[in-house]
Amino acid sequence: MPMLTLYTYFRSSAAFRVRIALALKGLPHDSAFIHLVRDGGQHRSAAYQAINPQQLVPALRTEDGSVLTQSLAIMEYLDEAYPDAPALLPADALGRARVRALAQAVACEVHPLNNLRVLHYLTQHLGVSEAQKTAWYHHWVREGLGAIETMLTQEGATGRFCHGDTPTLADCCLVPQVFNARRFACPLEDYPTIGRIVQACEALPAFAQAAPAQQPDAAA
Amino acid sequence: MPMLTLYTYFRSSAAFRVRIALALKGLPHDSAFIHLVRDGGQHRSAAYQAINPQQLVPALRTEDGSVLTQSLAIMEYLDEAYPDAPALLPADALGRARVRALAQAVACEVHPLNNLRVLHYLTQHLGVSEAQKTAWYHHWVREGLGAIETMLTQEGATGRFCHGDTPTLADCCLVPQVFNARRFACPLEDYPTIGRIVQACEALPAFAQAAPAQQPDAAA
Repeated sequence: MPMLTLYTYFRSSAAFRVRIALALKGLPHDSAFIHLVRDGGQHRSAAYQAINPQQLVPALRTEDGSVLTQSLAIMEYLDEAYPDAPALLPADALGRARVRALAQAVACEVHPLNNLRVLHYLTQHLGVSEAQKTAWYHHWVREGLGAIETMLTQEGATGRFCHGDTPTLADCCLVPQVFNARRFACPLEDYPTIGRIVQACEALPAFAQAAPAQQPDAAA
Repeated sequence: MPMLTLYTYFRSSAAFRVRIALALKGLPHDSAFIHLVRDGGQHRSAAYQAINPQQLVPALRTEDGSVLTQSLAIMEYLDEAYPDAPALLPADALGRARVRALAQAVACEVHPLNNLRVLHYLTQHLGVSEAQKTAWYHHWVREGLGAIETMLTQEGATGRFCHGDTPTLADCCLVPQVFNARRFACPLEDYPTIGRIVQACEALPAFAQAAPAQQPDAAA
């Protein structure tokens, strides 16, 4: 049986999410490394465009050869297609809605504003300074993580992880975002609940294995 | 039984998505109008922050009084909580992944870069000109809709709508994005498949009723 193949780049937050999900579910997979900087960005090559017209990582080739895109959609697919592996979403509709909202508070509000192509546009096309770029990055992290911190602190469903005591889709999104924020030297001391949850996640092998520094393409 | 209550703003693309979903599913609901411009932005009020710490619309108060946030999470909830009403996602895991990816290609890649708060940051904090702001808006629409056009044109699952012959979550996201792009005078002639699908959607009462101009808060 052909395996799952993940098209990934070590530093991509969105690919990092799916690597965590695959590890939490214990699903073996191949990796295809798409370097977002080298060769003018391998995601812009005709070969990769034929795989994902969005020219973004991650993408996932399924066991039947279909190609899926968008990290949240891929993680939901893994949860639906491999129901015997640990679930990434709770069973109840309200809980699922809460986990998805927390995941989307990262994936629709913070990450899209701070990824490589956007920062590139700011400096290349709008001529913003390094200081302005950093201020932009910090601003959207503050807006997003501030709201998430409030939700996690106020809502009774928060547990050892974002939702209860097992990791979910929300944790798969939160940890890469915090990793990224640290890389850009964002102050994070105003988010103690996020900090506590990320620490609990990072103590798990699935999160540790999925980290950028552990990927084969990080060394190359 | 208390009804569903949608916190909405007529011009919000994300609220527009949920209005379409509620209409497609035929779910009666109350509306609470949160004006994003008036009073310095009613979404920034303490009263609304207590409802949604993210200070974004839409939010949905469920029949049991829970508050849900993030438009994609809300639409998935409606589909799960009201399974007897028309489904917004197909039944098979691959089809669901495709619909979610198309929805997220709008909701995670285009809309986050072009909403009000981001355009405001560009002009207020980075001092970009009107022409640069328009170029920014058009750039991300072109990147996003270009990729979606390719997916819709190449993939056999595309039908009268984004996925087959009944509207899904993908159409709920695509129509507001195209509406918004027209408002900003984006050229759309390079996206004939998107144009055809949006036209098919707009011919349906659910989409027509959900349109910004039809909302009570549009007139006020």
